[in-house]
Amino acid sequence: MRRSIATVCVSGTLDDKLTAAAAAGFDGIELFENDLVVSPWSPAEIRARCADLGLSIDLYQPFRDFEAVPPARLEANLRRAAHKFDVMAALGTDTMLVCSSVSPDARDDDGLAAEQLSRLADRAADRGIRIAYEALAWGRHVSTWDHAWRIVRAADHPALGLCLDSFHILSRDVSPDGIAAVTPGKIFFVQLADAPHLRMDVLQWSRHHRLFPGQGAFDLPGLITTIHAAGYDGPLSLEVFNDVFRQSDPARTAVDAMRSLIALEDRAGLRPLPPAPALRGHAFTEFAVDGGTGPQLREALRGLGFAHTGQHRTKPVELWEQSACRVVLNSAVTRPGAAISAIAVSTDDPAAALRRAEALRAPVHVSAHGPREVSLASITAPDGTDVFLTGPSPDWRADFLPTGEPAAGESAGGLIATDHIGLTQPFDHFDEAGLFYHSVLGLDRLATEEFAAPFGLMRSRALATAGREVRLALTVALLRRGEWAPGVPEPQHVAFSTPDILASAARVPRRLAIPDNYYADLAARFGLPGDVVEPLRRHGILYDRDAHGGELLHFYTPVHGGRVFFEIVERRGGYDACGEANAPVRMAAHRHLRLSGR
Amino acid sequence: MRRSIATVCVSGTLDDKLTAAAAAGFDGIELFENDLVVSPWSPAEIRARCADLGLSIDLYQPFRDFEAVPPARLEANLRRAAHKFDVMAALGTDTMLVCSSVSPDARDDDGLAAEQLSRLADRAADRGIRIAYEALAWGRHVSTWDHAWRIVRAADHPALGLCLDSFHILSRDVSPDGIAAVTPGKIFFVQLADAPHLRMDVLQWSRHHRLFPGQGAFDLPGLITTIHAAGYDGPLSLEVFNDVFRQSDPARTAVDAMRSLIALEDRAGLRPLPPAPALRGHAFTEFAVDGGTGPQLREALRGLGFAHTGQHRTKPVELWEQSACRVVLNSAVTRPGAAISAIAVSTDDPAAALRRAEALRAPVHVSAHGPREVSLASITAPDGTDVFLTGPSPDWRADFLPTGEPAAGESAGGLIATDHIGLTQPFDHFDEAGLFYHSVLGLDRLATEEFAAPFGLMRSRALATAGREVRLALTVALLRRGEWAPGVPEPQHVAFSTPDILASAARVPRRLAIPDNYYADLAARFGLPGDVVEPLRRHGILYDRDAHGGELLHFYTPVHGGRVFFEIVERRGGYDACGEANAPVRMAAHRHLRLSGR
Repeated sequence: MRRSIATVCVSGTLDDKLTAAAAAGFDGIELFENDLVVSPWSPAEIRARCADLGLSIDLYQPFRDFEAVPPARLEANLRRAAHKFDVMAALGTDTMLVCSSVSPDARDDDGLAAEQLSRLADRAADRGIRIAYEALAWGRHVSTWDHAWRIVRAADHPALGLCLDSFHILSRDVSPDGIAAVTPGKIFFVQLADAPHLRMDVLQWSRHHRLFPGQGAFDLPGLITTIHAAGYDGPLSLEVFNDVFRQSDPARTAVDAMRSLIALEDRAGLRPLPPAPALRGHAFTEFAVDGGTGPQLREALRGLGFAHTGQHRTKPVELWEQSACRVVLNSAVTRPGAAISAIAVSTDDPAAALRRAEALRAPVHVSAHGPREVSLASITAPDGTDVFLTGPSPDWRADFLPTGEPAAGESAGGLIATDHIGLTQPFDHFDEAGLFYHSVLGLDRLATEEFAAPFGLMRSRALATAGREVRLALTVALLRRGEWAPGVPEPQHVAFSTPDILASAARVPRRLAIPDNYYADLAARFGLPGDVVEPLRRHGILYDRDAHGGELLHFYTPVHGGRVFFEIVERRGGYDACGEANAPVRMAAHRHLRLSGR
Repeated sequence: MRRSIATVCVSGTLDDKLTAAAAAGFDGIELFENDLVVSPWSPAEIRARCADLGLSIDLYQPFRDFEAVPPARLEANLRRAAHKFDVMAALGTDTMLVCSSVSPDARDDDGLAAEQLSRLADRAADRGIRIAYEALAWGRHVSTWDHAWRIVRAADHPALGLCLDSFHILSRDVSPDGIAAVTPGKIFFVQLADAPHLRMDVLQWSRHHRLFPGQGAFDLPGLITTIHAAGYDGPLSLEVFNDVFRQSDPARTAVDAMRSLIALEDRAGLRPLPPAPALRGHAFTEFAVDGGTGPQLREALRGLGFAHTGQHRTKPVELWEQSACRVVLNSAVTRPGAAISAIAVSTDDPAAALRRAEALRAPVHVSAHGPREVSLASITAPDGTDVFLTGPSPDWRADFLPTGEPAAGESAGGLIATDHIGLTQPFDHFDEAGLFYHSVLGLDRLATEEFAAPFGLMRSRALATAGREVRLALTVALLRRGEWAPGVPEPQHVAFSTPDILASAARVPRRLAIPDNYYADLAARFGLPGDVVEPLRRHGILYDRDAHGGELLHFYTPVHGGRVFFEIVERRGGYDACGEANAPVRMAAHRHLRLSGR
């Protein structure tokens, strides 16, 4: 099946949109009328440009409110349509979308709708054009796919068929199962969009909050399977109205769109991908540091009980270890400050994982390396972080010559493994990142949370392997930060796990101070006795409890190098989140620490 | 009545919030529990800080889901409350808010709710504290103010009364009229928020989209009048949950909040302000230019038929005129580029208008001026534009020495007056700007429109005098622009009116080119005959028609100095908008012109 994208999905001029769609590998486009109207290219020039780029124009959406109108209005509408048929002839496209009418003038009369659509199909057929009729979820009288199908069936015209739009189908409580029984050949076009479940007016939901497949809550693989069973083999076309995608870099957005479609085809069994990798755990986390922030990170790692065990054979790169916790400090990167530049996860078959990543249009790099160095391939995530894939054994450590310093064991800081990595995402790429980690690395998406932080609302989403060997916590501001943004800019952190938070806290000297008010509230909120709360208060340990009685005890370090910090966590009783409930407390405490100049 | 603001209304640490509230002139605050919990100050320290700032703590909101619970839960809740009474004693505040329960455990039993609230009030009274019970619009069993009142009346406890929140009242279809009959003294607290009408889940509406009074669609003056009639004389307290305000500069937001309350008190007749000025028209528009952009603007004005008629006596400031259209080019401002630095409107009594502006906490400046110069006072709008108020006669022109060049009359470009001024607003201050122009200058707010522009969704709002002597068109991106933002940054323009758009177009050489596709669509969309469309196409004139048959014909110039442009408009048949429907066409055309390097 061909892959198509509506021009409304991405930002820019028509040229920006076509260039982006072609570069991302789409076969065709749906042309939105507004994109044509504002373009300096004539329809013939647009056709030529698309041909140059290898794009077909699969659908044109020129107007609304056609059917079930009084006779005088019908004549005007047919005249309008004739104008648009001329445009379509020049564009070289043969399918026109007609959405069910939202006009207050439209009559609730299926027979009239069928008759008028049939007349339109007559005129269309004369021009070699087909009419694809689609039920808008907020159509005045026709708002479900099966109602549209009854009208198309009644009209019984070879040039009139259905356009099925997943949003309009799955946003309603009408089962799509009956689609499998639609007469073969009568589905003319399929438009795909995902969406989160939102309790709001369906039109606003549709116009602002659609997402690419796999980014929302709809069962699109199920729908595609049903449509495929009905014999449809036309284009699968993305039609996503999203406020963020409308203003983000179209080249990036088009790749995200293509990835969503490839992943959907895999899940629906249409074009299988190499399987998602089984991730075994966090291998290491790499920080890029400079001359100023390197010493800060080294001091912080020492304070956490890490030892500097290895020095890279050829590069200014250090390995720090404590039990299975491993951090790499890389001074070879030339950007200022400190940042998490890479995460490394282990898997049985890195090569297969890379093939899947490449198939999903993820940027894959094989690092330049010297003699005796292990080749590590990486995939660049949407926020620019490199994801290295290592084999099950840590043979990448052969790149590091031992410093002679013994690896710190559990007794050092009591830290045993990397629990999760927290990464602030660029505003434009939060949904892209969720799909990236889910489709490319096979991480499950856990719940999305919203919370009120001191400087604005935040959204967070955790992703993890089924066995929780690898966890990521992605966060983003609900609105893009503006000029007044006094918090830590784009914070990042690594959380290490301990079996004994009190023992670890006692060994780690520089912990983030948490206000006494927090502990007074904690006692009242959870009914915790004083002898439980007091040690937490003394050590600055935060606490959360989930609905099943699972508990998280965790503390933080100050911010190092302006952006990064560490967290130590103890999970009890199957607590599965990342302590998002305490994020505002941590953020305020980091702010107060900075204001106090320490 | 005292003026109070909930800490949740503004961004920042508790210190940021208190400082902002005090600087804006509030008498007191409502303390949100989260702001206390994350604060490094003890409750006693918070009390002392508030006292230093002259702020009382009028309300504390410590917890939820109190009433109508099983007995064991009640005991736990009372213990929780005892903790919070301790905090309140240390804070020195005597009113605790209890919202109606949203817990699935809550019983639908008014008698039980009344009994349990009565027990809480007993405990509270022992500590000198009152309980203000409030119906949340999404409360599980109690969701209207009158239901809460029945429970409070049934409890009949001196320490139990009502908290009335305008959002929870006006977002429901329950009339607030009965509030006037509430027993005097039983309204303990009043919280105020406005909101736009939105068709969405009421909880999400409340948590994200509240606005300050006068920025939304609610009849707050009517509600305040009713509450006042019930004998309430406690604080009027703003409680506004808004995604933008939560992340914008708290000092600015607090002033906006204070202005909203002052304007509301005026409208409700509680504290009258000097009346809003009757604006007579646009006197002039001032552009700040530099060495590079000054020549561009001069050339553009010549092209439009303006004459350089006056030179300022002491400053590098030029006056350009054509009929009643007046533009001032100011090279004395030291910022680079070109921008609309000031607009000037005429009114009968500028001094009274300035007194109103000052009362509404608007920044008022009296310009430094030399001998023989006319003193002009200005008010700085939220986007930084200065609004000069001139008297009815243009005596400010005495500041300019004639150049000898005769003023261009209508025959020059055919332009007769300033029709409107278009100003892109800073993202954080769009609602503030609407309230500013409405309350300070008395402009009516016309409809807010949303439209899809090439680089993202936009929102626009026109404001105008009743007689349309003065019009402003404010626009803002629906989401703050990110890194990929190829459009004109923060565009601004002045629109001049002509009685004959075709004649003006023929006289103005540099008009923005509009694509032929636009005219093909125009013919189809409005059913316009070819002999009407063809002259429009030839001259690049855009067209819009409203629901009443009113028509707008308008064309644009290219962008000058990277940011500013001019528009020429002819209104026919009472067309009252500002051509927003064509804004995407204009934006794309400006983009294409820039890409073509012209």
